[in-house]
Amino acid sequence: MLSADLVERLLAGDRRALGKLITLVDDGACEGREAIVRLFPKTGRAHIIGITGPSGVGKSSLINAVVRNLRVKKKTVGVVAVDPSSPFSGGALLGDRIRMQDHFTDEGVFIRSLASRGSLGGLSRSVNNVIRLLDAFGRDVIIVETVGAGQVEVEIVKVAQTIIVMMSPGYGDVIQMLKAGIIEIGDIFVINKSDLEGAHRTVEGLMSVLELNQQKEGWKPPIIETVAIGQKGISELVDTLERHRDYIQKTGVLSTRESRRIENELIQLVNEQVYEKITRCDTGEGESLRTIVSKVLSKQLDPYSAAQRIISALSQGKYKF
Amino acid sequence: MLSADLVERLLAGDRRALGKLITLVDDGACEGREAIVRLFPKTGRAHIIGITGPSGVGKSSLINAVVRNLRVKKKTVGVVAVDPSSPFSGGALLGDRIRMQDHFTDEGVFIRSLASRGSLGGLSRSVNNVIRLLDAFGRDVIIVETVGAGQVEVEIVKVAQTIIVMMSPGYGDVIQMLKAGIIEIGDIFVINKSDLEGAHRTVEGLMSVLELNQQKEGWKPPIIETVAIGQKGISELVDTLERHRDYIQKTGVLSTRESRRIENELIQLVNEQVYEKITRCDTGEGESLRTIVSKVLSKQLDPYSAAQRIISALSQGKYKF
Repeated sequence: MLSADLVERLLAGDRRALGKLITLVDDGACEGREAIVRLFPKTGRAHIIGITGPSGVGKSSLINAVVRNLRVKKKTVGVVAVDPSSPFSGGALLGDRIRMQDHFTDEGVFIRSLASRGSLGGLSRSVNNVIRLLDAFGRDVIIVETVGAGQVEVEIVKVAQTIIVMMSPGYGDVIQMLKAGIIEIGDIFVINKSDLEGAHRTVEGLMSVLELNQQKEGWKPPIIETVAIGQKGISELVDTLERHRDYIQKTGVLSTRESRRIENELIQLVNEQVYEKITRCDTGEGESLRTIVSKVLSKQLDPYSAAQRIISALSQGKYKF
Repeated sequence: MLSADLVERLLAGDRRALGKLITLVDDGACEGREAIVRLFPKTGRAHIIGITGPSGVGKSSLINAVVRNLRVKKKTVGVVAVDPSSPFSGGALLGDRIRMQDHFTDEGVFIRSLASRGSLGGLSRSVNNVIRLLDAFGRDVIIVETVGAGQVEVEIVKVAQTIIVMMSPGYGDVIQMLKAGIIEIGDIFVINKSDLEGAHRTVEGLMSVLELNQQKEGWKPPIIETVAIGQKGISELVDTLERHRDYIQKTGVLSTRESRRIENELIQLVNEQVYEKITRCDTGEGESLRTIVSKVLSKQLDPYSAAQRIISALSQGKYKF
């Protein structure tokens, strides 16, 4: 099937077309790219929410509860789940999906796990483009879930407009998360399983860390205590999500974040095309990367002069298109 | 002082000149870059060893013990310590250095912590260039130590020719390390504190994981049990390090790894220069990145067409040098 047909069907609300396009985008297929080019003007309406935190804090249960709340309000939802750090993610995510089965039969909810195993850049672009598909499909809210507290997770969750960082008593050492740079990306903090012993200490630990990070002006990340499986704290969370979106829209934070993301995306695309140009079999008049590397290996060239040589050939149009 | 003088003094064996050049390189200064260009032909002699593993396994003690063994054999040593994940690394590494104080007064040992806080790419280039300085300085063995088991540590430790992955009973869950992709980079595994309870189980756990990963041919990563503070297992480790180096030299693995590293370095340098070109205030005839991003933001352009436009302008020499 041509991607043009799929694009039309997606715009007409066909879930199967959406699913197929997500697969094409996630596989890095040309058709996926074409679809993004065509659908791009239809994007920009959804509220994109990122959720991260160590495994075991109850992210799936929280998403389940948030989705239920949003559905009562007649909002449509897309959920994208990513576990970049785990080679076993397929299985783990399948388990999570089962916990979200409340919504499997609801047309207003679309859930998808991403299986991408590529580079960090490839994965975050894939997620970004899947969000665009869901956005063009008309979802009001798109939730991106990622596991863990590493560099990769931090990067991927940045595709979101509002970022929820989750902890729960006993999991999610605040200092570890601080070190991993995850505290500073949180717009809203959720302490789940707040009925468990130690919840109070977790909240206090987090509060003192947040005070250290506190800016004088602007959004002060709230800490919300939830018991996701009991739906406790969920309407407060959903209200806060909406309040944050209003805030970033009104203050211009949203468009600043958006332009930074697009800037990164463009740079990455340019880098990839440059790479392709200098590594292809037929490089035109330009020296291939392989040739230049061998000159550096034999010490005929140092790395800096070698890079300069590539740049010069590139801007003289010596590499073939 | 000009970097030319510093380069001459480094080649004459002046430790202070080495120290200054390391600082210049780590700061990303032009003089550091000049020095690398000049010293590059003098590099390629040292055996570069990477050591990684979770904090608490005794990396500093192991390095201390290995250095002692190498010094008995009259080999000169350089140690570079990097802790990219921790905002507190300055302090932690200083503590580590104190544990290595056996060698502080030995002219044959040079120890340096890197304080770089830049991007992953920036940090690994910095480490790479510091290694080159130590190599040109004539060190026989250069040890790069990095903490943790994240993406960043894995990348940085790849600057080495022989990679030691450390664990100890109670620390360093094998499954966690497997997930983080750290098992597959190990050429040699060290179980330190092997006199502690649970050592046997750690060794067995690792063995079963390694068997799963085992290639049919080539180097089979050995597991060496050590008690670093008691110098137990250290000569076996040092012998194995030498055996690994001989192996990668004879089989061509060394030059394959080397060319992959140089390839990555060149691509990164090219990417940075392209970035600089398209983001400078005066881009010549080319559209600035900022202008193009704003067209994407307003949906006049999609990201793919935008990237294509930059590439075309670049290869038509429209961006100013």
